[in-house]
Amino acid sequence: MGPGPSDVHPRVLSAMSRPTIGHLDPAFVSMMDETKEGLQYIFKTENELTMPVSAPGSAGMETCFANLVEPGEKVVVCINGVFGMRMKENITRFGGEAIVVEDNWGEAVSADKLDEALTENPEASIVAFVHAETSTGALSDAKKLCTIARNHGCLTIVDAVTSLGGVELRVDEWEIDAVYSGSQKCLSAMPGISPISFSDRAIKKLSSRKTHVTSWFLDLSLVMGYWGKGANRTYHHTAPVNTLYGLHESLVMIKEEGIENSWDRHQKNHIILRDGLEKMGINFLVKVEDRLPQLNTVIIPDGIDDVSSRSKLLNDYNLEIGAGLGAYAGKVWRIGLMGYASRNENIALCLLALSDVLGIQK
Amino acid sequence: MGPGPSDVHPRVLSAMSRPTIGHLDPAFVSMMDETKEGLQYIFKTENELTMPVSAPGSAGMETCFANLVEPGEKVVVCINGVFGMRMKENITRFGGEAIVVEDNWGEAVSADKLDEALTENPEASIVAFVHAETSTGALSDAKKLCTIARNHGCLTIVDAVTSLGGVELRVDEWEIDAVYSGSQKCLSAMPGISPISFSDRAIKKLSSRKTHVTSWFLDLSLVMGYWGKGANRTYHHTAPVNTLYGLHESLVMIKEEGIENSWDRHQKNHIILRDGLEKMGINFLVKVEDRLPQLNTVIIPDGIDDVSSRSKLLNDYNLEIGAGLGAYAGKVWRIGLMGYASRNENIALCLLALSDVLGIQK
Repeated sequence: MGPGPSDVHPRVLSAMSRPTIGHLDPAFVSMMDETKEGLQYIFKTENELTMPVSAPGSAGMETCFANLVEPGEKVVVCINGVFGMRMKENITRFGGEAIVVEDNWGEAVSADKLDEALTENPEASIVAFVHAETSTGALSDAKKLCTIARNHGCLTIVDAVTSLGGVELRVDEWEIDAVYSGSQKCLSAMPGISPISFSDRAIKKLSSRKTHVTSWFLDLSLVMGYWGKGANRTYHHTAPVNTLYGLHESLVMIKEEGIENSWDRHQKNHIILRDGLEKMGINFLVKVEDRLPQLNTVIIPDGIDDVSSRSKLLNDYNLEIGAGLGAYAGKVWRIGLMGYASRNENIALCLLALSDVLGIQK
Repeated sequence: MGPGPSDVHPRVLSAMSRPTIGHLDPAFVSMMDETKEGLQYIFKTENELTMPVSAPGSAGMETCFANLVEPGEKVVVCINGVFGMRMKENITRFGGEAIVVEDNWGEAVSADKLDEALTENPEASIVAFVHAETSTGALSDAKKLCTIARNHGCLTIVDAVTSLGGVELRVDEWEIDAVYSGSQKCLSAMPGISPISFSDRAIKKLSSRKTHVTSWFLDLSLVMGYWGKGANRTYHHTAPVNTLYGLHESLVMIKEEGIENSWDRHQKNHIILRDGLEKMGINFLVKVEDRLPQLNTVIIPDGIDDVSSRSKLLNDYNLEIGAGLGAYAGKVWRIGLMGYASRNENIALCLLALSDVLGIQK
C-alpha cells in the first residue's frame, strides 16, 4: 500500500508465467492488437499511436520528451512535486529550454499561473504537467490545463502514471497530445512497462522534426514499425513478452469492471480509508478538492517516528506504506489504494496496523 | 528455437509469478545484491558496476553508447551484421563519429582490418563490436579484438547479447570495458532486461564526461544510486520487480550448472544438431571456426520455400525457427539452441519436423 508498485492481481501474476512465445508469432501479434485496444479503452482515446513502451514509466516519460522536444524549443513545465522536476530534467537533456511554473508541493498546478506564463512566453510550443503527483498525492485539473495550453497554441505532455485507471482521464475529450503512464499503479499489473498515447497533432509534430530523435530505442518512428497497424510487424527490439501477457490480462480485467467503475471504486475506498484515518486523528496533506483517492498523503502525528513505524508495519503486518519525499521526508506517509490494492481487506488491515503503531486503544 | 526469445525455463516462469514487493523492500534489495553477484559470475568479472538495465537488450546497447560516447568522439565500429549496424546508429545519434570496419555478413570481424583502421585513426577512443552476431550466427574473437583496441589506447564496447552463457566470455581476463547482453537468449529467461558490466576504466571515462548523458533513464551516474553498493538505495525509477525475480532465478540455475558447463552443453548440443542437419544435406552459412553453437544459421535447400516451411513448422509442430535477415532473407534459417532450448528433446523435434518439411524419407 505504498505509492506503487501496488498489489499485482493474481490473474496478472498467473498470466506472466505463461510460456514465452516469439515477439513476431501470429498469436502474439493478435495479443498486441488487443493490448492496443485495451489501452485505447482505458485512456478514452482513438489515437492510433497508443501502445506500451517496453520499459518503466520513466522511459514512457522520456519517450514523450525525446520525440516531441527539439533543441532550442521552449517548453513550459509545471512543477508541484518530484515528477514535474523529472519532466524539467528531460526537457533540458533533450536541448529544450524549460520555463518553470511552480506550485507548492501538495497543491494542484495553478491554471492562472500557467496562463500567465504562456502569455509571457508566446513562443513556447509545449506545456508539460503531472496529472496526479505521486510524490504528494495532489491531483491537477488536466482538462482545464490542456484548454489553456491549446488556447496558446501549445501541445501538451501529460504524466498520467498514477492517474490512469484511478481517476477520470479522457485523452480525446480533453485533447491531450501526449500522455504516458505506468503499469504498476492503478492497473494492478507488474512494474516495467509504460503505456503511452499520441494525438494526430503530436504525430504531425514528430514527422516534421528537423533533427533525429537521440534515442534509437525510444524513437517512435522506428518503434511504430513494430507496434503500428496491420499484421506486417517489423522487428525493432525484442518485446518483453511475459510482461505484455501481464499487461494484457490487467486490461481484460479493467474492461470487465468498466473503466468508470474503476474510478468509482478508487473514490469509494478512499472515503472509507479517510474516515478511518480521521477518526484516529490523522490529517491529510492535500486539501479535499485536490486529493487523489488512490494516493492518500497524511501527516505523521506529533511524537511518532517515521522510520520505526514503517518498519513495524512491514515486519509485523507485512504492510508497506510510502515515505515522504523532499521537504516532506519524515513528515508524511503516502498510503496507496491503487488498482487491486484498492479493496476492503487492505483498508481494514491498514487501519488496524496503524492504530497499533500509533498506540491507539481500540 | 529461433534467434530468441528462446524457451524460458519453467523455474523462471514460476519465479516471475511471485507476488510483487516494493522496489525498496529490504528483501528485494537483498535479491538485487544476489543478482549483481550472479551477473558477475556469468560475465566472469569483479566489476562493481554490473547490473541489469530495466529494459530489453537494445536499451542495454544504448546505455553503453549514451554513457560512453560524447559528441565529436571518434568510435571505430565493426559491422558484420544487423547489430553492428545498430551500434553505428547509436554512435551517430549520440553525436559521435563512426569509423566503420566492414566484414561480410556471416563472417567474423577481421582483427587485421580493425588494427589497420585504428592505425589510420589514432584519435579514435572507443572500439565497438558484436561478439556473437544474432543476425548471422558468426562468432568473433573478442579476446583478440579487445587486445588490439587496448594496444591503440581504446576502450571497448562489446555486444554479448547472444554470447553470454552460450560461449566463452571473460570480461575481466579479456579486459572488456563495457558489455551488454540480453536475458532472452542463453540465460533461459524472459525478454525485457539487459545485463551490463562496466570496467573501472569505463567508469573513469563516465566521471570525466564534459556533457550530460542525454538520457535521464539510462544515465548510469543516476542509476547507480539505486543499483550501487550498500543498503542505501535511492529511488531512480521503479524496477521491473517480477522480471528481476525471473532473472535472479535464471542466474541461480546457471550457478547450479556452472557457467563453463553451460558453454559445454551449448557446444555439445550444437554438434548433435549439426550432424543431423548435415545428414539431411543441409549446409551451414558460417565456416566451422566462426560458428556459434547457440545459433545455427543454415542455407535453405534449393526448391524449398522459406515462408511456407516456417509456417508448417509453427502450425504442425509448434516450432519456431528464425528467418534470414537483410541479404539473407529467404535464403537462410536461424535455428537457436539457446539456454533451456539447448536440449536433446528440442534437437530431436527440430530434426524430425525439418525432415517432414523437406520431404525427406526417414
